[in-house]
Amino acid sequence: MSITTPAGFVAAGLAAGIKASGALDLALVATEDGRAVPAAATFTTNKAAAAPVQVSREHLAATGGRVAGVVVSSGNANAATGPRGRDDAAGMCRLAAEGLGAAREEVLVCSTGLIGIPLPMGPITAGIPRLVAARSGGDAAGADAALGILTTDSGRKEVLVDGPGCTVAGMAKGAGMLAPDMATMLAFLTTDAELEPGPLAGVLRRAVDASFNALSVDGCTSTNDTVVLLASGRAGPCDADALAAAVTEACQGLAAQMAADAEGADRMFQVRVTGARSDGEAHRAARKVADSLLVKCSMNGADPYWGRVASELGSAGVDFEMDRLAIAYGGTAVCRRGVAVDHDRAAVAGHLAGSSVEIACDLGLGSGRGVVLGVELGYGYIDENRTTS
Amino acid sequence: MSITTPAGFVAAGLAAGIKASGALDLALVATEDGRAVPAAATFTTNKAAAAPVQVSREHLAATGGRVAGVVVSSGNANAATGPRGRDDAAGMCRLAAEGLGAAREEVLVCSTGLIGIPLPMGPITAGIPRLVAARSGGDAAGADAALGILTTDSGRKEVLVDGPGCTVAGMAKGAGMLAPDMATMLAFLTTDAELEPGPLAGVLRRAVDASFNALSVDGCTSTNDTVVLLASGRAGPCDADALAAAVTEACQGLAAQMAADAEGADRMFQVRVTGARSDGEAHRAARKVADSLLVKCSMNGADPYWGRVASELGSAGVDFEMDRLAIAYGGTAVCRRGVAVDHDRAAVAGHLAGSSVEIACDLGLGSGRGVVLGVELGYGYIDENRTTS
Repeated sequence: MSITTPAGFVAAGLAAGIKASGALDLALVATEDGRAVPAAATFTTNKAAAAPVQVSREHLAATGGRVAGVVVSSGNANAATGPRGRDDAAGMCRLAAEGLGAAREEVLVCSTGLIGIPLPMGPITAGIPRLVAARSGGDAAGADAALGILTTDSGRKEVLVDGPGCTVAGMAKGAGMLAPDMATMLAFLTTDAELEPGPLAGVLRRAVDASFNALSVDGCTSTNDTVVLLASGRAGPCDADALAAAVTEACQGLAAQMAADAEGADRMFQVRVTGARSDGEAHRAARKVADSLLVKCSMNGADPYWGRVASELGSAGVDFEMDRLAIAYGGTAVCRRGVAVDHDRAAVAGHLAGSSVEIACDLGLGSGRGVVLGVELGYGYIDENRTTS
Repeated sequence: MSITTPAGFVAAGLAAGIKASGALDLALVATEDGRAVPAAATFTTNKAAAAPVQVSREHLAATGGRVAGVVVSSGNANAATGPRGRDDAAGMCRLAAEGLGAAREEVLVCSTGLIGIPLPMGPITAGIPRLVAARSGGDAAGADAALGILTTDSGRKEVLVDGPGCTVAGMAKGAGMLAPDMATMLAFLTTDAELEPGPLAGVLRRAVDASFNALSVDGCTSTNDTVVLLASGRAGPCDADALAAAVTEACQGLAAQMAADAEGADRMFQVRVTGARSDGEAHRAARKVADSLLVKCSMNGADPYWGRVASELGSAGVDFEMDRLAIAYGGTAVCRRGVAVDHDRAAVAGHLAGSSVEIACDLGLGSGRGVVLGVELGYGYIDENRTTS
């Protein structure tokens, strides 16, 4: 399986020479026949959005949500590169469009990697025609594309969901800098479902909110993050709710792979908040706990220090009454009515020693629910991020 | 010099047996004659505020801002301890008040340490009468008090400021969990200035905003943080602005000592934002950069990766235009108009290798200014915080 599994799509990936390592660094996902199909995308909310984000937003608006292909480069983010960066991003689209026989505005572009360095356009200009020529509907081509979008990831991330009457495939890049407020990574999804751009955008928004936006590695929102969904229509009309469920499942699968591959982290934890005044408040409270450096450090040390969890909930900016709070680790209650309760310490220690920890917090105030996935903070994160060289 | 240097104050500190280590764990600051004097305090904004915070707030409100003494215990936060915790905190005030010959409401109480464990009231009940009996105006007693409030701090933190016509002294506890939204540590200040509780509260608010609230270690807001200012009036009436300047200088001195002693961190960095739409937006932007895990990791690695600074500014929720951004490290411009500029790399590397880094960001949009002090994120922070045992 690969991004090309849903009928109507081709892909390619190759090493153009952007990465000094010689690893694959260009990727393409496109329609089989070069014709634009309904598409939706969500982009980073960062106001320092990179050039490819700016160009892709313009292209999607210009076509009213119709896309023939997406070209991706990795190793350099083309961010903080000014007018030259925008020209470079537009040039990548133009080159890919020529090869596909599409209009320039029908191609989107993404880049990921270091910020502040102009793209090396020599290898990219030479590489894109080769990339387009190499496109194919086979799984090998899909795998190359999934490799071509990676940076610090330990391996490719792919997903396939067979929905009722439609298929959804996806590939993603992201192993750090995963945070709230939008995608915070790159993800590309294809489906054979038939749906117009308007409802398709709604489908993608629901899926992103329930997956990538419920993931916390370090609370940083990157300059380049983008999620694109292309719908070939080959499987015919599709119920939007059924498609939304399938796309959500695909995005959650990719998000779980990202959390598992978070830079230098071995332990994930799920913060489940119930009893909040609203789902929104529950999500915000869960996010505050999952983003907390102190809670992340506790997870690294497998330390059942629920006082930190309580402290973060108290400063999350949501309705909170300490005397109503209950906290459980892996189903074992450690705090009720805001105070410690006797519990099976061995059970909690055993749960915390695992690779996936569950922290359940009941605020006792309403029926709002929310879940956010976090990852531990240990030496590995620092090793990965202290220098870029 | 010590907290007792301004005329009219006494102090004491001793080891009551709260800390297993045998270190000092009770402290007192009080008026010489046991009479209540004008006082002001700021408390944590955390809704999971600890019992002593709840009790001190009530006492300060009940007296209209008049305090005869503050009793402090360290090693246990008396947080997440429910009604019993509130009784214990009130009991500490009652015991100290009896010894001082003051009303219970004229005594404030602070605790710092682990959350979720009831206070060991046996040693505290035995210790407070001894503590009150040991009170003295000498520097040795002041030094004992400054030791008695510490937890993970590497040493006591004291400050003395000779203002025009008044003296301000202070002592503080804090070496981690330092963050926005209020004090996020304990600090106690005394002055011989004469000022009523109302204006005194304004003085303290200005000083806290310009010092402790401009400090970021890990963005976590603790359950116990409190700053108290007592004014004996022995030096006579004082201009509020002059006193505010002196109290601000004292608080900034204590905040700098805390940053220098931040758990496991050796390198500080100052984020100075100019050109924002307002001072508030400048402060928010500077805070976002100083709180960023990725920027903190870069500081640990002495890595001049200004792209992360730009990315944080872009997601700070303030007005921002990438094409107007300028960034400099230690006075060396590395980014202008949102793109990299040629610069003296050796100068930047030398600056980043030091123990105090300056990151200047000009947003190019207005005249708003703000400064926030941050600390690096390295192995030391994780070692200090991964377990509580």
